Amino acid sequence: MNGQYFSDNQISDHRLHPDRLFSADPSIRAVARDIYTCIKDLPIISPHGHTDPRWYADNKRFDNPADFLIKPDHYVFRMLYSQGVPMEAVGVPAKEGIEVEQNPRKIWKLFAKNFHLYRGTPSKIWMAHALTEVLGVDEPLNENTADRIYDYIDAKLGTEEFLPRSLFKSFNIEALATTEFAVETLESHKKINTSGWDGRVLTTFRPDDITNPEHPCFQKHMGILAEQTGEDVSSWDSYLEAIRKRRAFFKETGATATDHGFPTAFTTILSKEKCQELLTKAIAGACSPEEAELFRGHMLIENARMSCDDGLVMQIHVGCLRNHNTEVYNKFGSDKGCDIPTQVNFVNGFRPLLCEVGNNPNLTIIAFNMDETTYSREIAPLAGHYPALKIGPAWWFHDSPEGMMRYRRQVTEAAGFYNTVGFNDDTRAFLSIPARHDVARRVDSNFLAHYVCEHLLSMTEALEIAKDLTYSLPKQAYRL
Amino acid sequence: MNGQYFSDNQISDHRLHPDRLFSADPSIRAVARDIYTCIKDLPIISPHGHTDPRWYADNKRFDNPADFLIKPDHYVFRMLYSQGVPMEAVGVPAKEGIEVEQNPRKIWKLFAKNFHLYRGTPSKIWMAHALTEVLGVDEPLNENTADRIYDYIDAKLGTEEFLPRSLFKSFNIEALATTEFAVETLESHKKINTSGWDGRVLTTFRPDDITNPEHPCFQKHMGILAEQTGEDVSSWDSYLEAIRKRRAFFKETGATATDHGFPTAFTTILSKEKCQELLTKAIAGACSPEEAELFRGHMLIENARMSCDDGLVMQIHVGCLRNHNTEVYNKFGSDKGCDIPTQVNFVNGFRPLLCEVGNNPNLTIIAFNMDETTYSREIAPLAGHYPALKIGPAWWFHDSPEGMMRYRRQVTEAAGFYNTVGFNDDTRAFLSIPARHDVARRVDSNFLAHYVCEHLLSMTEALEIAKDLTYSLPKQAYRL
Amino acid sequence: MNGQYFSDNQISDHRLHPDRLFSADPSIRAVARDIYTCIKDLPIISPHGHTDPRWYADNKRFDNPADFLIKPDHYVFRMLYSQGVPMEAVGVPAKEGIEVEQNPRKIWKLFAKNFHLYRGTPSKIWMAHALTEVLGVDEPLNENTADRIYDYIDAKLGTEEFLPRSLFKSFNIEALATTEFAVETLESHKKINTSGWDGRVLTTFRPDDITNPEHPCFQKHMGILAEQTGEDVSSWDSYLEAIRKRRAFFKETGATATDHGFPTAFTTILSKEKCQELLTKAIAGACSPEEAELFRGHMLIENARMSCDDGLVMQIHVGCLRNHNTEVYNKFGSDKGCDIPTQVNFVNGFRPLLCEVGNNPNLTIIAFNMDETTYSREIAPLAGHYPALKIGPAWWFHDSPEGMMRYRRQVTEAAGFYNTVGFNDDTRAFLSIPARHDVARRVDSNFLAHYVCEHLLSMTEALEIAKDLTYSLPKQAYRL
Repeated sequence: MNGQYFSDNQISDHRLHPDRLFSADPSIRAVARDIYTCIKDLPIISPHGHTDPRWYADNKRFDNPADFLIKPDHYVFRMLYSQGVPMEAVGVPAKEGIEVEQNPRKIWKLFAKNFHLYRGTPSKIWMAHALTEVLGVDEPLNENTADRIYDYIDAKLGTEEFLPRSLFKSFNIEALATTEFAVETLESHKKINTSGWDGRVLTTFRPDDITNPEHPCFQKHMGILAEQTGEDVSSWDSYLEAIRKRRAFFKETGATATDHGFPTAFTTILSKEKCQELLTKAIAGACSPEEAELFRGHMLIENARMSCDDGLVMQIHVGCLRNHNTEVYNKFGSDKGCDIPTQVNFVNGFRPLLCEVGNNPNLTIIAFNMDETTYSREIAPLAGHYPALKIGPAWWFHDSPEGMMRYRRQVTEAAGFYNTVGFNDDTRAFLSIPARHDVARRVDSNFLAHYVCEHLLSMTEALEIAKDLTYSLPKQAYRL
Repeated sequence: MNGQYFSDNQISDHRLHPDRLFSADPSIRAVARDIYTCIKDLPIISPHGHTDPRWYADNKRFDNPADFLIKPDHYVFRMLYSQGVPMEAVGVPAKEGIEVEQNPRKIWKLFAKNFHLYRGTPSKIWMAHALTEVLGVDEPLNENTADRIYDYIDAKLGTEEFLPRSLFKSFNIEALATTEFAVETLESHKKINTSGWDGRVLTTFRPDDITNPEHPCFQKHMGILAEQTGEDVSSWDSYLEAIRKRRAFFKETGATATDHGFPTAFTTILSKEKCQELLTKAIAGACSPEEAELFRGHMLIENARMSCDDGLVMQIHVGCLRNHNTEVYNKFGSDKGCDIPTQVNFVNGFRPLLCEVGNNPNLTIIAFNMDETTYSREIAPLAGHYPALKIGPAWWFHDSPEGMMRYRRQVTEAAGFYNTVGFNDDTRAFLSIPARHDVARRVDSNFLAHYVCEHLLSMTEALEIAKDLTYSLPKQAYRL
Repeated sequence: MNGQYFSDNQISDHRLHPDRLFSADPSIRAVARDIYTCIKDLPIISPHGHTDPRWYADNKRFDNPADFLIKPDHYVFRMLYSQGVPMEAVGVPAKEGIEVEQNPRKIWKLFAKNFHLYRGTPSKIWMAHALTEVLGVDEPLNENTADRIYDYIDAKLGTEEFLPRSLFKSFNIEALATTEFAVETLESHKKINTSGWDGRVLTTFRPDDITNPEHPCFQKHMGILAEQTGEDVSSWDSYLEAIRKRRAFFKETGATATDHGFPTAFTTILSKEKCQELLTKAIAGACSPEEAELFRGHMLIENARMSCDDGLVMQIHVGCLRNHNTEVYNKFGSDKGCDIPTQVNFVNGFRPLLCEVGNNPNLTIIAFNMDETTYSREIAPLAGHYPALKIGPAWWFHDSPEGMMRYRRQVTEAAGFYNTVGFNDDTRAFLSIPARHDVARRVDSNFLAHYVCEHLLSMTEALEIAKDLTYSLPKQAYRL
């Protein structure tokens, strides 16, 4: 592999420079490099993400470069779209009747031609890392090299060492969690568990499909839930019991955590009568937006109570307005780069939740969101007090060098390091996993180096913290 | 001109130092200097501002130093006012019956005496630049030198080279846009166009006077609009037709863009019946605040639709509470330094607008505001997706070194560089134009130098981006 | 005292290094050090805090290390609590019937064992400063040294030089304000005033107990107020007169300022009839939350009017949701580390207040809060215009190196330096006073050094500003 790949005529090593992301100040850089050296080879703990468990279960070769690297990555095609490139031209799978580009080579070339658009974005870093460090491409990607690089990658993906399980091992992943809805059957996870392969892939229980009345699959999945559990899910107590059964099933299959993604941080405790009333409405598809919010808000607390019992760690990420662009949604569906962050209020929103279960030191709630104003104003002060609450990482649009640096600068003083839980990559793009973890480790090293050089931490402390942030804290927080 | 003007006894070159605004780190500074060297002499594109078109049409000498540099600059007198200096003493034009200082020399001396108040503010940088780089003053401004400098500037302003058109040329302005309300007759622009002078001054169509029912001139200007266009502006279709005619007139006279400044980012699509109802009320001065908001919200979308047809670029700046101080407003009127930023919600507010026209790659909407929390949470994610949306510059109170640096750090990762459109100076103060563009170029050079030294960009890329941010992007985005 | 105390095996001077908190860049560091050298020995002005006036009145020895340094410091025990250490184990005083640890040595050892949790937090800096710089401890605090250090401190606290008045002098405090509710009798302050001791300790008038209908002591204190003043506090005019009398009493006893801490920045002007109605309800304990908000909002303006008359400086700090954790509140009461910042809207909230009294250059209102988004969007633009409004310091969770740096970077450009009023420590922890002021001085020096090295300020200017921020501005703003 070749660290000088993205060179250009004037500067020979400005992509994947060994000191990339470290401060230009020589003393900080030297310390950052020393810290990074001590953590760069630690195993990857990937406790939250969206890779496809079938990859690890079936271990089949990945598709061509476009299907593997471009089409599923909404970070990639949203930027092209913002600059006037139709999603059809990128081959983004569309609803019936809409024709999209089928030729992967053509899609790859379109991407290559526009690669300059990603300058300054984390997508550029991740893709450059994947191309050079993982795939070993040794020339710059552009219109002229696109064809050759396409063939090169396509051939690589056909080799033994680029099969999913091989990459999993070469990425040095110790544990990786995927995310499945409550009614999924977890066939792939069962297959992995019984396959004799020693890679650790866990599922995560994400019951949004059966706790959010506005989820597109709510009605359908409630039907499946009833069948799967033998419970009358239209009756409140049985509905809760059905959820408990699914949690138990996920836990048996390996899950250590649940995951909840709602539009807001609103939580509430309703009377049993009110709960039954809303459940009935929800099943009938008759909830108003306000009623759906009440139901979701109460269900977060119900799940938190269940976590107190069954020990599953609770991840809550909020504050995303999904499918902001209705035209794109109508043509291409969800997860198409048009989910936009919104303002979040944890202080009032989480108060019922935290007053109910936040003092339980055996419960772990990991919260994250994309409203950075909550870092120093809400999340850090709350996590710096409530035993159950921990701060998840800089997320999504902020899973980036500047974003992570702002995160550390804004949460550390009120919450310390030990109320955070390390990085999660939250990715659908398999090759971005090592890249993303590498960026996180570099940014943390650089952050700690600042504190060492400003004499706020000793080097011994910084090294201990770096290892904790990279390895011990996520392992411990997610109970891996 | 003398870069050492603001020297003091201990440090000889701390004002207008050639490396001002560059990082103290030697490697970053060296790179920043190299980038800056490549862009500092590029022509100025000034696509949004409030200089007086009569200056360029009539080419008469500017008034005395106080009338030219102090009285019209709300950045300048708001600071004096905040420290207890009455606006009357600064000669700020007041409503009838209120006596204000008439002696420009006295006003100038008052300013000079208080010049230390501006330490750390962009006003200091701009004024220092104007005094030393443009006017060639070569001693520090203070109580003792005020008289001498007054005479010196006054004499300068009487010379040929300080006439408006001469300065326009010596500032190396390639194109400059002013802003006029919908019913203005654009006499100065016509005069410029037919004068044979080759300076490019464009008008911008700002229809707030006829689309905001709460605009103080709404009723009066609607009357003028009816006369000018021969349309019955009380009838919805004819009202829209009247606006189209004015847009066409502005476009014929040179405009390439419209400009819209509303209190919030709220947009909505109303039925034709509702529109007619609100229009009737608006003309009668009978809109409630909520109705005015609805009307404005719908009119932004109507103007966006018209832009899809006539190709005028649409600028939208929102989130300013005008005339916060009623006492000052009652005595001195608008634009007196008491406009205050407010929280903005683009995600929900712009959704109807963007769902209606945001997928049109031939439309350009340039949005900016003063709520910096929207940078990474709203504006960058939205512009990184919608083809029509571009991000305007750090604005007003954030048109400053720290403000611009925060802007770049917070928008680049999610939107890249190519969904931004370069700088606009938005100024009423003619001499601040070169100063403001110089600050923007320096801050961008310094920002890019950080990325080069942290190995996120190659120098070739950084130079290309620097030229784009300074020249190509604004030229292209505003269709100049 | 020993600056190398927190050394570890690898790095010998990373705690209390003489250059701590200064940039790693050698040129910035050199300038920062020069600026700091010029201000580090200036007297401490502590215009806002919560130390106990009895300390200075009675001058008795402080209790054991746990009672003195741990139990009263909510910064300290909130972090322990967040990591699962029960408050009972820290000996936090609880309500009747709840048993808490009584052995101070055991509490001290628990703290020592968990001292690593504070890494990266200001509590670590303050405690390290107190231990090494003030108490002269010369070994690291941990489980093994806890006993020995306990004995050492306990002995120190018994010496003459560690009596409250001795420390006050050795801290070089020129003036220190405590905070007392409206009906307090100020016996300690009177005792200090007549004691012949030349330490300057002032009270501050904090009438929240009689202006906030939701204050737990409202009814009780209104009764006391009536008695103290001989006014019928159930009648609006007499109620205001009673407040005026208490203000006069506080002023006679030495107060130069009032202090107001409400949940929001809401202000309003109500009719006299409405005021009487709300007062009646408030006394009856019958105010709805909305009515309480109205009453508080109006009372801020009444107190501002009184300040126009009696010259007391008005401090307003808002945006704290007190006692977020009801379980903790029920067991331990207020000020137990579960007060959480909330979003604040000064622009709309303060508008009635500022329109009423903001143009009065003889009034000083000092506003601060914990919603950092208000810095550049609201507080700096408002204070950069209204003569009466000044910006208080980075507060509470932001009284920290990163927090203070963000504060300066975000307020200076729109408000300048002279609309800020220097630091206040707001502390209950006596030994943290010199530590907190030292951190503020270092951060300001470092901030100014950046501006000097980026050629935005001359060294002469920076030194003048540093002295103003440290000494002249607070002295002047709080009329000390």
